[in-house]
Amino acid sequence: MSQPDVRVAPEIAASAWFNTPAPLTLAGLRGRPVFLHAFQLLCPGCVSQTLPQVKRIERAFAGTDLQVIGIHTVFEHHAAMTPVTLQAFLHEYRLASPVAVDLAEEGSEIPVTMRRLGLRGTPSSILIGRDGTVLSHVFGIEDDIAVGARIAMALAASPSPAGTAACADGRCEAPAGEAGA
Amino acid sequence: MSQPDVRVAPEIAASAWFNTPAPLTLAGLRGRPVFLHAFQLLCPGCVSQTLPQVKRIERAFAGTDLQVIGIHTVFEHHAAMTPVTLQAFLHEYRLASPVAVDLAEEGSEIPVTMRRLGLRGTPSSILIGRDGTVLSHVFGIEDDIAVGARIAMALAASPSPAGTAACADGRCEAPAGEAGA
Amino acid sequence: MSQPDVRVAPEIAASAWFNTPAPLTLAGLRGRPVFLHAFQLLCPGCVSQTLPQVKRIERAFAGTDLQVIGIHTVFEHHAAMTPVTLQAFLHEYRLASPVAVDLAEEGSEIPVTMRRLGLRGTPSSILIGRDGTVLSHVFGIEDDIAVGARIAMALAASPSPAGTAACADGRCEAPAGEAGA
Amino acid sequence: MSQPDVRVAPEIAASAWFNTPAPLTLAGLRGRPVFLHAFQLLCPGCVSQTLPQVKRIERAFAGTDLQVIGIHTVFEHHAAMTPVTLQAFLHEYRLASPVAVDLAEEGSEIPVTMRRLGLRGTPSSILIGRDGTVLSHVFGIEDDIAVGARIAMALAASPSPAGTAACADGRCEAPAGEAGA
Repeated sequence: MSQPDVRVAPEIAASAWFNTPAPLTLAGLRGRPVFLHAFQLLCPGCVSQTLPQVKRIERAFAGTDLQVIGIHTVFEHHAAMTPVTLQAFLHEYRLASPVAVDLAEEGSEIPVTMRRLGLRGTPSSILIGRDGTVLSHVFGIEDDIAVGARIAMALAASPSPAGTAACADGRCEAPAGEAGA
Repeated sequence: MSQPDVRVAPEIAASAWFNTPAPLTLAGLRGRPVFLHAFQLLCPGCVSQTLPQVKRIERAFAGTDLQVIGIHTVFEHHAAMTPVTLQAFLHEYRLASPVAVDLAEEGSEIPVTMRRLGLRGTPSSILIGRDGTVLSHVFGIEDDIAVGARIAMALAASPSPAGTAACADGRCEAPAGEAGA
Repeated sequence: MSQPDVRVAPEIAASAWFNTPAPLTLAGLRGRPVFLHAFQLLCPGCVSQTLPQVKRIERAFAGTDLQVIGIHTVFEHHAAMTPVTLQAFLHEYRLASPVAVDLAEEGSEIPVTMRRLGLRGTPSSILIGRDGTVLSHVFGIEDDIAVGARIAMALAASPSPAGTAACADGRCEAPAGEAGA
Repeated sequence: MSQPDVRVAPEIAASAWFNTPAPLTLAGLRGRPVFLHAFQLLCPGCVSQTLPQVKRIERAFAGTDLQVIGIHTVFEHHAAMTPVTLQAFLHEYRLASPVAVDLAEEGSEIPVTMRRLGLRGTPSSILIGRDGTVLSHVFGIEDDIAVGARIAMALAASPSPAGTAACADGRCEAPAGEAGA
């Protein structure tokens, strides 16, 4: 990428939420960084790798204002991965952070949020900055060191209108005001 | 710790160096963050956990100005862990970053750098900021997410006299100028 | 246990089968050792540990007459773990050996085969000898060395006066009467 | 292999032994199965994979008459892997079973036992039957299920007309002649 991705993350469209007293919106979370992870309960890589990583993220950044959100983006085996099964899954796997059921789109296998975010499949993760822009978009699993670095940079970024930290392509660059000159 | 550790890291004292054309000094590296890891070649935790993590750190931050340095701090089995054995060890384990042989101190089991740094044992790691101060000091192994976060913050810190990022006790706080007010 | 368990394994009661052209019965498998593993698709330990082990068992004993059978013994979250979800699960997790859906028992949370076998929960595994008796019954996961040893012994046992399986040099061969004609 | 390997294992030639009050010989162990593992203390695969597996083998077959023996077959970095370093290594890695230092052969990089056994490198393992013949010879690491199966079969083999070891139901008992008196 030769230029930073300054796209504002599209809003979540959910038919149901778990692990939260009220639905969440990215608009309402503006000012806080958001780690969004898309999964399916019958996706082996999501279960064996993403979920444990999400728990490690929750633990490592427990004292910060990072918001972790899961999105159950079912795009195959629709009859097999219903909200009833998801609810039992979340209980059994002890996932504590909020999870949205991605809204089904009539006439499409792909649900609405998945389409809006341009996800290629599961697992995928998207890190959203304090200003609502997409800082990174990963299909598959990224190693913990890189994830830790990205999130730390997102947390360190000034919430103010000016000055945004840019983390992309595995490198995290300090806000312009920091870099000297 | 109720107050940040602003101690400047003491200098490395080495009797030999591997993987570098010339000896390194922390003074000469001022302006760059340094990840210092202390190990012994017969320390099981160092071999099974630290070394793989050091390689992951080297890979994740390859495009940055982070300097990784190993220190072979022998404080037991001195006759078993000589520089000859260390050299073969570094070759077999494919450790590419510079490694110092900690200088033996006459009349003591503990070598000089280990004493200066106040290390409790191996593995230990010390993250040094651009300004030469100790940002974190860990005895044992820290998980990758926390390590990635710490190093990212050290890299993001301004190298200038004013404004220092503080990472301590698992939390990384943005430089004062960033945090608003 | 002060005396060997010579109990003949009770028969499987299934409402459906996957990965087999026709239902299996332990009576029909008499003469062959059977490795029976009970699981639930939302049981984290079953997914992360038992299934990979079952695949390793299938691979290690591929050239023998060992029969591996899974039993989906749902005793909780019944609405969440239906045969439709199980079918997609088996597809996604690439489990190739036959799987029975344990028969629901009216008025009970516990299905029929689970009750007959006296299972305490999932994962459980039962090794059945050539003569149909229970050789071992394990609740939880046993390490691979012990599992390999148990199954090798079951394969080595003489099936009847005539015909002996030979396990030696890492290869286990079917009884002469089986291999020929 | 189209025919069984009936070669009697060649004798161990050692310049030193650790973890045993007296030197061992395969001739003196005739009647018992022997699991022989060849390693070098600076061989990464030996340290990360073989040693943990050897400990699992020791544990799984603790109640049997299996004899586990390590051979330190140094064929490179000779000055780096001396008996002094080996002794500290065995202490730090908590290897409890007997270890022989393979006898250096004048004018050769390859030590005597390594040459006699025809080892291609480290790690290697050789399973020797009760009758002293080589049952298997593996270069590299074999998975635990296969190792468990091999050793169980070696233990189950009749040692001689009189006295039979019994491996069944996960327990392996020493021949009657051994256990009594």
